[in-house]
Amino acid sequence: MTQKHWEENLYRGKPYVSGEQPKTAGLIKLNTNENPYPPAPGVARALAAFAEGGANAARLRLYPPADGGALREALAAYHGVGSENVFVGNGSDEALALAFRACFDPSRIQGPVRFADVTYSFYPVWCAFFGIPYETVALDAGFRADAAFGGRQDAAPTSVCDANAADGDGRGGILPPDAVPAGGVVVCNPNAPTGIGEDEGFVREILNNHSSCVVVVDEAYADFAAFSAIPLTREYPNLLVTRSFSKGRSLAGLRVGYAVGSAAVIRALLAAKDSYNSYPVGHLEIACGVAALEDEAYYRETAGRVAKTRDETAAALRGLGYDVPDSQANFLFVGCGSRERAQRLFAFLREGAILVRYFDKPRIDDRLRISVGTDEDMAALLARMAAFGAEER
Amino acid sequence: MTQKHWEENLYRGKPYVSGEQPKTAGLIKLNTNENPYPPAPGVARALAAFAEGGANAARLRLYPPADGGALREALAAYHGVGSENVFVGNGSDEALALAFRACFDPSRIQGPVRFADVTYSFYPVWCAFFGIPYETVALDAGFRADAAFGGRQDAAPTSVCDANAADGDGRGGILPPDAVPAGGVVVCNPNAPTGIGEDEGFVREILNNHSSCVVVVDEAYADFAAFSAIPLTREYPNLLVTRSFSKGRSLAGLRVGYAVGSAAVIRALLAAKDSYNSYPVGHLEIACGVAALEDEAYYRETAGRVAKTRDETAAALRGLGYDVPDSQANFLFVGCGSRERAQRLFAFLREGAILVRYFDKPRIDDRLRISVGTDEDMAALLARMAAFGAEER
Repeated sequence: MTQKHWEENLYRGKPYVSGEQPKTAGLIKLNTNENPYPPAPGVARALAAFAEGGANAARLRLYPPADGGALREALAAYHGVGSENVFVGNGSDEALALAFRACFDPSRIQGPVRFADVTYSFYPVWCAFFGIPYETVALDAGFRADAAFGGRQDAAPTSVCDANAADGDGRGGILPPDAVPAGGVVVCNPNAPTGIGEDEGFVREILNNHSSCVVVVDEAYADFAAFSAIPLTREYPNLLVTRSFSKGRSLAGLRVGYAVGSAAVIRALLAAKDSYNSYPVGHLEIACGVAALEDEAYYRETAGRVAKTRDETAAALRGLGYDVPDSQANFLFVGCGSRERAQRLFAFLREGAILVRYFDKPRIDDRLRISVGTDEDMAALLARMAAFGAEER
Repeated sequence: MTQKHWEENLYRGKPYVSGEQPKTAGLIKLNTNENPYPPAPGVARALAAFAEGGANAARLRLYPPADGGALREALAAYHGVGSENVFVGNGSDEALALAFRACFDPSRIQGPVRFADVTYSFYPVWCAFFGIPYETVALDAGFRADAAFGGRQDAAPTSVCDANAADGDGRGGILPPDAVPAGGVVVCNPNAPTGIGEDEGFVREILNNHSSCVVVVDEAYADFAAFSAIPLTREYPNLLVTRSFSKGRSLAGLRVGYAVGSAAVIRALLAAKDSYNSYPVGHLEIACGVAALEDEAYYRETAGRVAKTRDETAAALRGLGYDVPDSQANFLFVGCGSRERAQRLFAFLREGAILVRYFDKPRIDDRLRISVGTDEDMAALLARMAAFGAEER
């Protein structure tokens, strides 16, 4: 056997590319959907207990509870479910990563995992990382999905990722509901990067069309939306809902996310977590997370402000001639008319010290995703965009 | 195609079982190798900056740097390497998990990954989680490895995990050096749960015998040992060394670990991290980690105290008739003579409010792993063990 060079054994998967975290100050940062308002005051008080002279200052020498401990309990109480229905992870990204491995075991699923062609671009990365076959479901021109979500003839999968995806050929357009069971379904709701939120009827129809696999609903942005599928977890044991503290709770820098589902799905998530890293959530995350949950009034108020700013900004952008779908998230997906113009606007905003997100990908390369900041941030954005329009004329 | 029930798609791997984190107070906790001394005072000061009135209180709303930022830089300076040689993760367990995926890509390696039959029991779990074939190398009766580590005829692999492990048959005892290249090597040094530390010559010989794969040296306990392989990373680009802040730095509850290696290996680790979770290390971990690194004198002093207590306890236990190998870690691996007696002693200690670790596994089921606590903790342990001896008579 010829020996390989050791470098040939290294992972070469294409990673997810997260938004830039600029080192320079003074930028208006609208590129990674952070909340413009600080965390609830209780969070800083929780940290004081671990700081100098605090009662918990020595506790960091001890391992945290492996399951999220008090934060798991607090989340269960908050959502009115049992602690056996809650999984706590290092951000909703980790909860999702482990959900892919735990719910779509590549050695067990019969068909590929389904998700939209325009959605969170980490999904195909997790599939590649764990060797899970997938297929994408084409959203319509308005970035909406048929609620059958690939389970019906009229919304057949548009692409299958690789040869591992069993029965990949001969399926286009002739797929009766559930005839070839999906290995799983992942729905981002509200969807990223479009911001479009679907209602209970939509999620129920997906669940009814996919009863033989786990359906993951990624609710990273649900704090700004009208609907959450969490109550449905009591009805559908194959539903897993993931949530984040990064957006609605203003704690992107803390690293806490969680998932709610049936005890069976949560057990699988815990087993996957304990097969990767026993303690992904430390004492500080637990204490700050509990404090953040306790100040519900603060977060309802800040989420309301973000939603108001978002809707006013969307209206103003439409007034400037941009195509902006209604958003239920804390960002807007701004159609610029062409790929060239989107790239030019991105650069023009960047020169004006405003950082937004651009995805050079099929179907969405003519758009910018703009996070909702404060009213002042948005006034600066709109002024700069008006200047862009003036320059074009 | 017959439809599966959705539960049939769930992960059923056997997870790593971490030591109990008891909820009751008043126990002497010697079961998970935590440091008995609190973190350096600078850690609590770093947290104060994020607490009420602190300059950083609002920063938690922003994502942290994805690569560990200032902590990565500080670790590079600490070890005299470039920042491109450092990977920061959520504990050394996460650094190791990602190292398995990044350095032993199951779609690329030609042979199984090698590690000792008595070592950290998370290694086979990571292999199963990522679908990596492995084989174990039998340590001798004193829990020492031949430095060729399976690469030589006289230390051939003893077991191969499954059919995925290519060329699994016909190898026993007839293996010339590197004839069938290992897919990788993992060495825990000092080893867990034995505590035995090997020297530079040992690690060099493993590296010289395994030049066509990545060699991972897990140094979770190296803060208490005489030797670290980190300087060798400059010489061997296929060497990756992982370290923890949980033991020597008294920060098990914070969740910080890291790895040092060539830029090529670190790039693969970062790509794997960005294929799982972009930001596993938050602002608080970065700030506390930097503060911990700055107070080297404090940690040298506490590590010295732990080592002194360890060696005195080992001598006392030998005086009581127990078999205790020399340890270079912060725990002792105490031979009790039989499985039955080890289990009985475990229960007797537990009744006396002393929690230690027992592994009911082949070759080590007659031993207890006892973490080194304070001198007071150890006096209580020795008194209880003397009582156990008295009861036996």
